[in-house]
Amino acid sequence: MSSEFGSVLRVGLFGQSHGRAVGVTMQGLPAGESIDMAELEAFLERRRPGRNELSTARVEPDKPVFLSGLLEGKTCGSPLCAIIENLDARSRDYEELLDKPRPGHADYPAFVKWGGEADLRGGGHFSGRLTAPLCIAGGIAKQILARRDIFVGAHLSSVAGIPDESFPAQPSSELFRTVAEKEFSVLDDAAGKRMQAAIRAASREGDSVGGVIECAAAGLPAGLGEPMFGGIENRLSAALFGIPAVKGVEFGSGFGAALLRGSENNDPYRVDGNGQVAIETNHAGGILGGISTGQPILLRVAMKPTPSIAKPQRTVSLSKMENAELAIRGRHDPCVAHRAVPVVEAVTAIVLLDLLLEGKQGWI
Amino acid sequence: MSSEFGSVLRVGLFGQSHGRAVGVTMQGLPAGESIDMAELEAFLERRRPGRNELSTARVEPDKPVFLSGLLEGKTCGSPLCAIIENLDARSRDYEELLDKPRPGHADYPAFVKWGGEADLRGGGHFSGRLTAPLCIAGGIAKQILARRDIFVGAHLSSVAGIPDESFPAQPSSELFRTVAEKEFSVLDDAAGKRMQAAIRAASREGDSVGGVIECAAAGLPAGLGEPMFGGIENRLSAALFGIPAVKGVEFGSGFGAALLRGSENNDPYRVDGNGQVAIETNHAGGILGGISTGQPILLRVAMKPTPSIAKPQRTVSLSKMENAELAIRGRHDPCVAHRAVPVVEAVTAIVLLDLLLEGKQGWI
Amino acid sequence: MSSEFGSVLRVGLFGQSHGRAVGVTMQGLPAGESIDMAELEAFLERRRPGRNELSTARVEPDKPVFLSGLLEGKTCGSPLCAIIENLDARSRDYEELLDKPRPGHADYPAFVKWGGEADLRGGGHFSGRLTAPLCIAGGIAKQILARRDIFVGAHLSSVAGIPDESFPAQPSSELFRTVAEKEFSVLDDAAGKRMQAAIRAASREGDSVGGVIECAAAGLPAGLGEPMFGGIENRLSAALFGIPAVKGVEFGSGFGAALLRGSENNDPYRVDGNGQVAIETNHAGGILGGISTGQPILLRVAMKPTPSIAKPQRTVSLSKMENAELAIRGRHDPCVAHRAVPVVEAVTAIVLLDLLLEGKQGWI
Amino acid sequence: MSSEFGSVLRVGLFGQSHGRAVGVTMQGLPAGESIDMAELEAFLERRRPGRNELSTARVEPDKPVFLSGLLEGKTCGSPLCAIIENLDARSRDYEELLDKPRPGHADYPAFVKWGGEADLRGGGHFSGRLTAPLCIAGGIAKQILARRDIFVGAHLSSVAGIPDESFPAQPSSELFRTVAEKEFSVLDDAAGKRMQAAIRAASREGDSVGGVIECAAAGLPAGLGEPMFGGIENRLSAALFGIPAVKGVEFGSGFGAALLRGSENNDPYRVDGNGQVAIETNHAGGILGGISTGQPILLRVAMKPTPSIAKPQRTVSLSKMENAELAIRGRHDPCVAHRAVPVVEAVTAIVLLDLLLEGKQGWI
Repeated sequence: MSSEFGSVLRVGLFGQSHGRAVGVTMQGLPAGESIDMAELEAFLERRRPGRNELSTARVEPDKPVFLSGLLEGKTCGSPLCAIIENLDARSRDYEELLDKPRPGHADYPAFVKWGGEADLRGGGHFSGRLTAPLCIAGGIAKQILARRDIFVGAHLSSVAGIPDESFPAQPSSELFRTVAEKEFSVLDDAAGKRMQAAIRAASREGDSVGGVIECAAAGLPAGLGEPMFGGIENRLSAALFGIPAVKGVEFGSGFGAALLRGSENNDPYRVDGNGQVAIETNHAGGILGGISTGQPILLRVAMKPTPSIAKPQRTVSLSKMENAELAIRGRHDPCVAHRAVPVVEAVTAIVLLDLLLEGKQGWI
Repeated sequence: MSSEFGSVLRVGLFGQSHGRAVGVTMQGLPAGESIDMAELEAFLERRRPGRNELSTARVEPDKPVFLSGLLEGKTCGSPLCAIIENLDARSRDYEELLDKPRPGHADYPAFVKWGGEADLRGGGHFSGRLTAPLCIAGGIAKQILARRDIFVGAHLSSVAGIPDESFPAQPSSELFRTVAEKEFSVLDDAAGKRMQAAIRAASREGDSVGGVIECAAAGLPAGLGEPMFGGIENRLSAALFGIPAVKGVEFGSGFGAALLRGSENNDPYRVDGNGQVAIETNHAGGILGGISTGQPILLRVAMKPTPSIAKPQRTVSLSKMENAELAIRGRHDPCVAHRAVPVVEAVTAIVLLDLLLEGKQGWI
Repeated sequence: MSSEFGSVLRVGLFGQSHGRAVGVTMQGLPAGESIDMAELEAFLERRRPGRNELSTARVEPDKPVFLSGLLEGKTCGSPLCAIIENLDARSRDYEELLDKPRPGHADYPAFVKWGGEADLRGGGHFSGRLTAPLCIAGGIAKQILARRDIFVGAHLSSVAGIPDESFPAQPSSELFRTVAEKEFSVLDDAAGKRMQAAIRAASREGDSVGGVIECAAAGLPAGLGEPMFGGIENRLSAALFGIPAVKGVEFGSGFGAALLRGSENNDPYRVDGNGQVAIETNHAGGILGGISTGQPILLRVAMKPTPSIAKPQRTVSLSKMENAELAIRGRHDPCVAHRAVPVVEAVTAIVLLDLLLEGKQGWI
Repeated sequence: MSSEFGSVLRVGLFGQSHGRAVGVTMQGLPAGESIDMAELEAFLERRRPGRNELSTARVEPDKPVFLSGLLEGKTCGSPLCAIIENLDARSRDYEELLDKPRPGHADYPAFVKWGGEADLRGGGHFSGRLTAPLCIAGGIAKQILARRDIFVGAHLSSVAGIPDESFPAQPSSELFRTVAEKEFSVLDDAAGKRMQAAIRAASREGDSVGGVIECAAAGLPAGLGEPMFGGIENRLSAALFGIPAVKGVEFGSGFGAALLRGSENNDPYRVDGNGQVAIETNHAGGILGGISTGQPILLRVAMKPTPSIAKPQRTVSLSKMENAELAIRGRHDPCVAHRAVPVVEAVTAIVLLDLLLEGKQGWI
């Protein structure tokens, strides 16, 4: 069950950072859905490494190759598999790390779990590089959703404590597109400049910073999801914690709701001009009892600072069982939050598409 | 998939608040485990309603009846089913609510999903009452874990913004027991008194407050869990969001990690006095790459304020499709966070037991 | 995963033969479906023990009690739980068996698996008694299907080698009803008499006989199911082998197809009088590539002879680890095939309903 | 859920017959297992097309390429993906078939399910070609099992009604190896010659024949599997019906058990010379109550005659909705049963490995 998720639509990842390729399989994708390859590649470009000084110097074209699931540019109902070859893998940088587990990385628990058998070069299967095929699946899901007027967008809610604005109550697809086209995914570009300065400052000191990503999905109909353990929050959080470095997930007011009174946090119902039920506020993040309310789904994800830093760190030598010091060379991002913005969109889109595919589990 | 969770150990809930009984099934429970009924009932007592003025006036003895899965007080390897009969259900209080969805409750999305077919009396299957059978499963899981020196405990991290102390780095089973025996689950009783005053104040105003619960699990060995989507965080969060009113889940430093630098947030490794790998701090909450590090699992859960409040609220009449006002009578908790403390323990214990049962999926 | 099956509709069984109750949970049942209790009880009556000399002398009223999932006689969208109390359990008959595993029963592998912890009184969770709650779920599924003009019926294809007629190419709901109302489920009553004589003859000799059950489902639309491992045959067989004593499952021509040539076994397509595609024969049993063709689903299930026989048998004493002899007293069926007829219908109906609930997993 | 199976070990297939590649992912494979590539390729060679006149003229080298999951020839604990490129696909042969569904193939139900969107060239994802990557997974599973002295072997039990001998009660790994090395997988070569003559005779007449495959697994310990729906028979049959053309599955005496009396079909227990429990016969096929008895697992699978035949067949034109005639050119096997022998071994090995990986789900 490790690297798969989903119910009707099952997405599975494979690959190690320094192996031959990373890839994704999608089982349960509906047939007859066109995939706009240019749009998909533009989406992948948003998380690609090596684009600028804010991210790792590893340069990968990240061009997806589709092995199955398509017929003349459209999904054909059978499992889709797409891969991205690893071209710029430099494993020599990582040899020391096999003996000295990097603090904040999975090296040590992976060593306990698999002994020396795990492929930890470049983080192996734990690497952020696995988010590239995840974005292939997510980019496809986004296109299928957009065709039904369901739009998913995200931005950096904060980096190193520097806040961006929040999404408006009813974010539009235009707003999502505007943010997606920016090189740095914020609503307020002035805040974005301050964030970038903070990332560069940390980088110069051989250090890293964390951030928070806010994601919204507009257009989802009310009534999707299940009570208890099959709810939208359950399923989104289960998938979002699969993104490396995520340490918290909240919906709507989230942790802030714990500070409010019921009379403040409850979202009142009103009849709108069209004689439809409208919801005035969205403290619920579009979800009550696990089920969509018709309001935008709203969530925030906390990303820890990149654990790979140049600064010397205390660790141990597993072979000598003695204290050791470690200075990680390699090529690393001083912040992963900005590259993770499309990944959060990808995961959100996949989970919502899965929910929609279940939606008519009503009846033939 | 609605009301079930787990992999090797599958826990499923059933029942509606005003139906004949609520109950739980446990599939995959190991055989030969004794269940101490007195201890289990003491655990259930911690979340039982009607114990004091801080919780709903509904009085339920909440005595579990075991229909299957036991032989002479021990699990026998076949599915366990336990039920709690509903005795004090007063459905007349809820008739108005079928037409006027309560803000902050699942009434409206449930209406969209199921039309008028859902049983929403007292919240139906969405009711917090379902956490009673969840605690039966969790109490059993806690006993099985404790027999292997794995202990789970929780306390109110904050209520209405009033903070308790945090758990120490290495919380002991004694500390967990001490907190569990208190009527109000805090480390610092003075803080607890202020919290209770805040709850009473909200109650007097016909309002409610939220809170945050901190939960820790000590004694879990390193190396459990999976990368990507099968990680401990994924599985715990997926289950924890099944507890009614949870709107956020974080591990270790959580959202706070987004404010730290990598050099601050990384937990250094050291060789301890016994020649074992030790971890100095626990910003990771005991989990790296989805896998346990051997440090205590540490998580926090945000509970929104109880949506049922006596204050008049704006809603709609679904039959007349016009604006309406609603004042919820019934019997409700001005705060659910303190009663949810054992529920968070229950869910955490179930998920960790499931992980442990997978743990030796190694080999015959 | 033990005692559950299904995808959208998940059916789980619990209970031991001599425990307090046996029962069933159904998760994922659609809301708003009426349950005709009289019809359900008539269906349960068909497998009930103690009806005549051909079945075990254990007398159980087998009256289901619904604990959840219903509101005013209709499903309410939340999990359904129904139980049947065990009233006539005589555990004293089984004491010897704990030491001397009965040939043909699960006693010995259960002993290896769980040591002495399993509850094997009366077969425990392995008992045919678990098919009673399975029939509750199946009876409900049959009613929901019938409301959509999908009908499931079965009969004894053979007992002790004595054959009944086969179902016609297009079995009608009337035919299914006629067979269901018979005390002995055959198409040809003269064959049925010979079968009953064979059962009685075996019973007199302290022995037992096996049989084959043929089941058909008419009215299922074409296009349901999945290729490879999610096909209708995969899912039906996985569930059918859950019925105690089943040792073989075949679809359409089944093992007989291995004797035919392609030109004989292929079912030709024709345009019928309404301009629709028709299929002339049904060697495929209504399934090609795992997907329904629109022809009736047709399957056969081989039931081994009841392993509990009065004749002395060779076994071992596990405590003394020496050869032993065993004469099973207790109360047992000289043939289980005739009582299993409604059970095969039940399982088939549950799996087909599950498939239908997935069917529109198309789109919202 | 379509093209995946397994619990701890999840095997997923992807690819279309005339697409770029077919492939397999394996999630949950244990780390540190060597893969002998020469042995694996020899296993794949057994089902490869184009080896002789008895199989399709399509020539494919079927050389697997491993994209992930290996480190220096050993499994590394992360998901394995292997692919086989499609080189000799001639889609022009199949154009007519898109309009005229081939009797006995999935064309028509696939058309109903996906409209014109399915890729049915060469059978698409329904093609027997998908059994090539299935054999990669199965070949790996066989090697891992053999390292624990668990051996899986199969042979043609019959072709066109011509019977081979049966496996002996305790088949040895040597016997399995001898059969595997034969070009035609039978125990009795004289019978094999008659089978081949029958295949050639059918081929000359533009027709095809079916067959039965017998598979055994020796060395599996007692106590694996679960009662009811998680039993070995349930899981094996669910996977075996995923092999194209399988229409029946039976265990031990199977359908023959329905003809026996209990006193004949029950397998007596004896204490053997080592003071261990021994089982004299194996009518149960090594499985009682879903759980392994320690005897060899024994099963038979019925394969229908290849539906693709050169003889003219009656079908319809879907575009004109009129009756039509179809003579399939292309390249097809006059019998698939002999090429399916290693596929049955593959599926059996995968399911048993999955069971074993669950086996120690006992405890940490």
